Amino acid sequence: MAATRPRTTTPEGREQRDRILRAALELFTAHGFRGASLDAVAAAVGISRQGVLHYFPSKTHLLLGVLDLRDELSAARAEERARAGNWDLAEGLLDVVSHNQREPDLTRLFTVLAAEGVAPEHPGHERFQERYRHVRTVLTQAAREAQESGRFRADIDPAIVATLLAAVMDGLQLQFLLDPEAVDMVEPLAQLLKLLGGEQ
Amino acid sequence: MAATRPRTTTPEGREQRDRILRAALELFTAHGFRGASLDAVAAAVGISRQGVLHYFPSKTHLLLGVLDLRDELSAARAEERARAGNWDLAEGLLDVVSHNQREPDLTRLFTVLAAEGVAPEHPGHERFQERYRHVRTVLTQAAREAQESGRFRADIDPAIVATLLAAVMDGLQLQFLLDPEAVDMVEPLAQLLKLLGGEQ
Repeated sequence: MAATRPRTTTPEGREQRDRILRAALELFTAHGFRGASLDAVAAAVGISRQGVLHYFPSKTHLLLGVLDLRDELSAARAEERARAGNWDLAEGLLDVVSHNQREPDLTRLFTVLAAEGVAPEHPGHERFQERYRHVRTVLTQAAREAQESGRFRADIDPAIVATLLAAVMDGLQLQFLLDPEAVDMVEPLAQLLKLLGGEQ
Repeated sequence: MAATRPRTTTPEGREQRDRILRAALELFTAHGFRGASLDAVAAAVGISRQGVLHYFPSKTHLLLGVLDLRDELSAARAEERARAGNWDLAEGLLDVVSHNQREPDLTRLFTVLAAEGVAPEHPGHERFQERYRHVRTVLTQAAREAQESGRFRADIDPAIVATLLAAVMDGLQLQFLLDPEAVDMVEPLAQLLKLLGGEQ
């Protein structure tokens, strides 16, 4: 299921779709997926429920759109840092994890949906499969660059580094969400990054 | 919810409970949680549905019991290796991961339930919270021993090593289950273990 397939071709339509997604992102974060209704999203945008369904034919579609938006916002933050000239892979990932730790509701939403998405019949299955392929591709390229510039040790296949980094971030989220008082996500990731940096 | 609270005090009762769990483990693995009914579990043991419900008041209770059993079997395999005198932490974890890669159905069941369990109102929430506390405690102790014997580099807090190892294993499962053709779990874990071993 392609959550991002536009149901509109006009700039006004795209803007409306964007307003709905941002309202949904805010409401899902505040009240959870189950706690935020399509009616509440519609009310926040000032349109009818039918108006929301025109862009997103079900609440699941809306949710997948929100998850895409979340990824886009993360990518935009990373690019902003890159433009500021001080971005590197390690800092970028630590920033994502700190951000997720401060936004447990949306992180929880993502964790549950990604896990449910492992079932081939789940409406989000392909979306998550593609998402992780994309994440691995981006991280592999970033790891290769970090190796070439000497920031990462160069004796590990960058594709393995990518799989490992994505895995640690997801696994830390699970432990953190189950036990937020006991688990900090930043320090273990920082430690892995130090190991990948070849610190003796 | 304590899935393991015995509803029986006699040896016969414990044996019956154990037979139900093993039948459920087999059926859930073959047909998934949704695909295997309480009736099918009862039929496999040769008792009535009511007989199953005497030990496990709901299908969720039965599932939590199965997950406990899965952890116990993993622990038993580790102990068997330890008795054979050739166990170490790295080998033990690689063995668990290879095993999970060969049993994707039960691994999927565990991954989905653990993620759903992050919601405080989920019937398995406390069970998974306790499970991860236990896993971190066991892994922390094992990491400390590996550091003391020189198999792991000693400059990382063993509690951080434990959190990291558990996280990588869970995150690898998610990627593997979404995309079993593209993702191998063993090699990335082996790589992390090499880094923790201080290989230059």
